[in-house]
Amino acid sequence: MLVVAENQIAGLMTPEAAFDAIEAVFAAMARRKAQNFPVVREALGHEDALYGFKGGFDADALTLGLKAGGYWPNNQKHGLINHQSTVFLFDADTGRVSAAVGGNLLTALRTAAASAVSIKYLAPKGAKVLGMIGAGHQSAFQLRAAARAHAFERVIGWNPHPEMLTRLADTASELGLPFEAVDLPTLGAQADVIISITSSFGPLLMDGHVAGPTHIAAMGTDTKGKQELDPALVARARVFTDEIAQSVSIGECQHAIAQGLIAEETIGELGAVVTGDNPGRAGAEVTIFDGTGVGLQDLAVAAAVVELAKQKGVAQKVDI
Amino acid sequence: MLVVAENQIAGLMTPEAAFDAIEAVFAAMARRKAQNFPVVREALGHEDALYGFKGGFDADALTLGLKAGGYWPNNQKHGLINHQSTVFLFDADTGRVSAAVGGNLLTALRTAAASAVSIKYLAPKGAKVLGMIGAGHQSAFQLRAAARAHAFERVIGWNPHPEMLTRLADTASELGLPFEAVDLPTLGAQADVIISITSSFGPLLMDGHVAGPTHIAAMGTDTKGKQELDPALVARARVFTDEIAQSVSIGECQHAIAQGLIAEETIGELGAVVTGDNPGRAGAEVTIFDGTGVGLQDLAVAAAVVELAKQKGVAQKVDI
Repeated sequence: MLVVAENQIAGLMTPEAAFDAIEAVFAAMARRKAQNFPVVREALGHEDALYGFKGGFDADALTLGLKAGGYWPNNQKHGLINHQSTVFLFDADTGRVSAAVGGNLLTALRTAAASAVSIKYLAPKGAKVLGMIGAGHQSAFQLRAAARAHAFERVIGWNPHPEMLTRLADTASELGLPFEAVDLPTLGAQADVIISITSSFGPLLMDGHVAGPTHIAAMGTDTKGKQELDPALVARARVFTDEIAQSVSIGECQHAIAQGLIAEETIGELGAVVTGDNPGRAGAEVTIFDGTGVGLQDLAVAAAVVELAKQKGVAQKVDI
Repeated sequence: MLVVAENQIAGLMTPEAAFDAIEAVFAAMARRKAQNFPVVREALGHEDALYGFKGGFDADALTLGLKAGGYWPNNQKHGLINHQSTVFLFDADTGRVSAAVGGNLLTALRTAAASAVSIKYLAPKGAKVLGMIGAGHQSAFQLRAAARAHAFERVIGWNPHPEMLTRLADTASELGLPFEAVDLPTLGAQADVIISITSSFGPLLMDGHVAGPTHIAAMGTDTKGKQELDPALVARARVFTDEIAQSVSIGECQHAIAQGLIAEETIGELGAVVTGDNPGRAGAEVTIFDGTGVGLQDLAVAAAVVELAKQKGVAQKVDI
């Protein structure tokens, strides 16, 4: 078994490698060469923790395994972040475990890569302004990955707690982009591409805010009850997702579906746009990518980082 | 993370430690202090493999994690056994992975320990004769664990392929017990305790074969369609299991339930017999333990072997 520790990931994994891995696995999913397994997610009744597994198998890349871990909201007392996960890869030919990889930074990178892939394929032509909704830990990863996927000229941002917007301002500055804090109507009117990455349980961006052509990567909603977008906005957009079954149950589309505003059949797969089987934007005024997060994304970036660690000779070899 | 390799397990784990771990976790399950998570089991469409995860959390022992792996029927060409699994343990206080343990031998030991626990609590008083149905790889583990749980005087055995009975004869001899190959009616008439451990998809031991008082540990049926016992035998017995939900869906009881011969409510938990909340045999002519195998068993023996490895200073410490 090869082990790549959490503190090795930053020195090994690049946003480019994450982008390529996610683009490839979305395509494999759309070609039905890769399947996600049922997600296990359990409240432990201990430390208020949520714990579970997201597994899958990519028959193209022969990537097999799972991410295990969860959310420990009291981890600050241990000097640890609340989200803790580890990815385990298995040899698809024998069933033997082949790698264990720290999953915390990888989760941030794969989530950012997913919205970046959506921007590459769905951003309106000539998009110049990137609008960020949310300024938490994950927002900086999103902003960096978006800036690599498309040549934006400026960044505008909004966050429920305005004092946190310094994170976006600092990250934009690091990328050589001007940043301005705006209200949501201004953000919706001016941004060509919008990334929403909050933990909101109610709509933030309303239908009336958005003047197209606009692409929206809705990355925050991954649980029943969470919501970032006005269902009317979802209803008038051309909608894509990573996995339709998750989009309608735990993703942003859960609300428009529940209200009967959209039909599941109208939701496209981003992977099918990557493969060319779905025309993508095709003149739509507003496109939305409902990024829910699937196990295959975790496996794809973990496999990539193991490959990089092998090339650099820094993977720890462990008998098991 | 501590790593205990497959080839270290035999030198560390004892049947006694496995017995104690399984007895304790069954009790924790019956007291609702330990929960198994939904089982994931998927056909990969690659190498005819079945792959999945069995996870759980024991809040008493603070044991959290999963066994991952499966069945690779073509592994002989790689010089490996077909069942391959690895157990991963997590720190219940923080969500960080704490151990990775080879799961192959542990699976055999925990399955044998489960039937041994049932024999300790359910064997008729003064039981002298142990009857073994099945002579595959797992049968030797079952026989050894049974002989440790109860002082049998002789062993009788039957197997669909009689030439394989040398395994039982050799194992009995190693335990200082006489062995005799018999037919199933003789086995059912003479044995005080019966262990069935086959891959049968039809009833082998019939109701008319069994003259009580007898305890039967039915250990082979862990999948829809598998079967070792006549449903009429199950119907007249007092039935116990590790997990009722599995017993009625993938365990030996699936058939008696489907035929309306028994009600789910009549099936007891072995763990409740361990805790004293269920009187157990209580004068029953025939008792059956329907051993289906749960993730918490894997976690319990893995936690025990990690403890032994720590005590002996042989656990490999790995940064992750």
